[in-house]
Amino acid sequence: MSIAPTFEEDLALGSLTLSNGESLQNVIQRVSIYGTPREDHANLVFVSHGLTASGRLPEWWEGFVGPGLALDTDRLALLGINVLGGCYGSTGPASLSSDGTPYGSRFPVLSIGDMVAAQQAALAKLGIGRMRGVIGGSVGAMLGLQWILREPERFRHGIIIGASDFFSPMAIALNALSRAAIIHDPHFAGGDYYDGPPPNEGVHLARMIAMVTYKSAALFDARFGRRPDRAGADLAQDPRARFDIEGYLEYQGRKFVARMDANTYLTLTRAMDLYDLRAERTAATETSLTFVGIDSDWLFPADEIRQAAERFRLRGFPVRFQTLHSDHGHDAFLTDLPELAALIGPALEGFYVD
Amino acid sequence: MSIAPTFEEDLALGSLTLSNGESLQNVIQRVSIYGTPREDHANLVFVSHGLTASGRLPEWWEGFVGPGLALDTDRLALLGINVLGGCYGSTGPASLSSDGTPYGSRFPVLSIGDMVAAQQAALAKLGIGRMRGVIGGSVGAMLGLQWILREPERFRHGIIIGASDFFSPMAIALNALSRAAIIHDPHFAGGDYYDGPPPNEGVHLARMIAMVTYKSAALFDARFGRRPDRAGADLAQDPRARFDIEGYLEYQGRKFVARMDANTYLTLTRAMDLYDLRAERTAATETSLTFVGIDSDWLFPADEIRQAAERFRLRGFPVRFQTLHSDHGHDAFLTDLPELAALIGPALEGFYVD
Repeated sequence: MSIAPTFEEDLALGSLTLSNGESLQNVIQRVSIYGTPREDHANLVFVSHGLTASGRLPEWWEGFVGPGLALDTDRLALLGINVLGGCYGSTGPASLSSDGTPYGSRFPVLSIGDMVAAQQAALAKLGIGRMRGVIGGSVGAMLGLQWILREPERFRHGIIIGASDFFSPMAIALNALSRAAIIHDPHFAGGDYYDGPPPNEGVHLARMIAMVTYKSAALFDARFGRRPDRAGADLAQDPRARFDIEGYLEYQGRKFVARMDANTYLTLTRAMDLYDLRAERTAATETSLTFVGIDSDWLFPADEIRQAAERFRLRGFPVRFQTLHSDHGHDAFLTDLPELAALIGPALEGFYVD
Repeated sequence: MSIAPTFEEDLALGSLTLSNGESLQNVIQRVSIYGTPREDHANLVFVSHGLTASGRLPEWWEGFVGPGLALDTDRLALLGINVLGGCYGSTGPASLSSDGTPYGSRFPVLSIGDMVAAQQAALAKLGIGRMRGVIGGSVGAMLGLQWILREPERFRHGIIIGASDFFSPMAIALNALSRAAIIHDPHFAGGDYYDGPPPNEGVHLARMIAMVTYKSAALFDARFGRRPDRAGADLAQDPRARFDIEGYLEYQGRKFVARMDANTYLTLTRAMDLYDLRAERTAATETSLTFVGIDSDWLFPADEIRQAAERFRLRGFPVRFQTLHSDHGHDAFLTDLPELAALIGPALEGFYVD
């Protein structure tokens, strides 16, 4: 049962100068709000979404966002914004450029900082200044940290789950595999596929690759083991027979094709690759930060997140680091909701107005 | 500088009944020997090759196999056999079936046990019985363990590097990604591509995926970091610019296409998936075994190999487990040769005739 936003609008923000100097025209940001913001926004929390999600928070954080849940829409107002470059309402590579055709291969390289800049413009247009907090997992947490360094006076509390302050070479390599899957698809056509069949096979395979990086060996042991899939073909006889884990990956890939634009996938993963905040300075250090590392996460190892927390402590931020024990890997912030809520309970308390 | 084999022959072995009951006709095994075998074969060591290698041992274990090296062809005779299903001389999916056309999609599912059976037939034809030892890494080590359980009286010493006695669900998942890359390539044509363009893009991508699984995060940090590649394009500006790690993976993929048949890749990786010796019993326990786990290997984690060693100890084999400390991941058995030679020095001594 999904809850409806109390506010949703595609905000037209005009042109945005990107961090690489390029300019993007007619920028749209789709903003969704759940719950009722107080006049002073003291109960407003920005919930920053991950790679393949959107500003429609209950759709991807079901069981965590809603009435009576960890992010309780009866008491908090939750702000979601589809990222720049995305394909869920905000300007992205499938959007129409000034000549009336989709950007495709002409869409510029974006940084995480550019996504935050578009969100800053959206909040300015809405007259939203200081807020209660920010929370995000994975790419959402990357945006959260970028926000905090850029405007440390904006949020009182930040909760950063399953992401560090830079993207590692291994993580770049894993993104490169997913991108190669898309680029190698003949239907990709260099990115200008919008008037032909889309590169569905490539997107399908990209998702299969990514799913492995979001999970863990222990989870695969427990959930799939060495079982054949339910179709029942004999693996020793039939080259088309599959193990259960293979069927799962195929299924995840197939589901994904319907909801992801290939160029968005390329744009967002490249922004992840480019992300490195380690040398960034900040003027103030008002936001208290809770970092969460997941002990089975090999895309963002918990130890890297611990080190990121330390770098924020050295800048002067009040910082807490916590470990979520889970076999679910990187995805634990989407799957282990009661455990996550219990772990970060004290940090979540900071979101609730006294 | 490569050394030449003292013997090389494509042995015609007639038909072979596979473990799944099917029959494969006109089976060829390409056997290569380096160094000079003694009459009693007491200095003969079987060197079992990995997934993409061949019986031409100095080509893939350069610096480890040759005069004066760890596997010293001045004193030992080294036996290499291209595996059944391969594409380097032995019968595989690209071989001609009885109707004069390549097997392609008609090639049967193979097990690691079938590959050993073909090697057993080859040795019988050559009149080779008891030998000094067997050594292999990765898939080569999987064949080694299968050999030892089937004929524990065949070898006096076995050295098993970077492989366990079963293939884990995570490893199956990673193989599934590489296979999907090939199967999704439109040129794959269900496996019957031999009279058209081969699925080069798929094989290229499969290798990129596999390369990541053969390496480690620490190696990528040290060797590539977050450096752009040498082409010098600006990553923040140019969507076609690449990080150095991406250029490396692309290069490895491109190199691989020329030397791998897509169906062989599918056949061998499926045989890996099917591999599980944990329930196999054995009559005798004469071979002394050295297992080597690589501490940065996440395809075959060292701890899984330690557990495999324990299962062989429980069967009654004299067993030693050693850890190779390396940042090179699974590939360390191909890259860290002085360290490997030093670590397994005492075990290698067992290969040398007193």
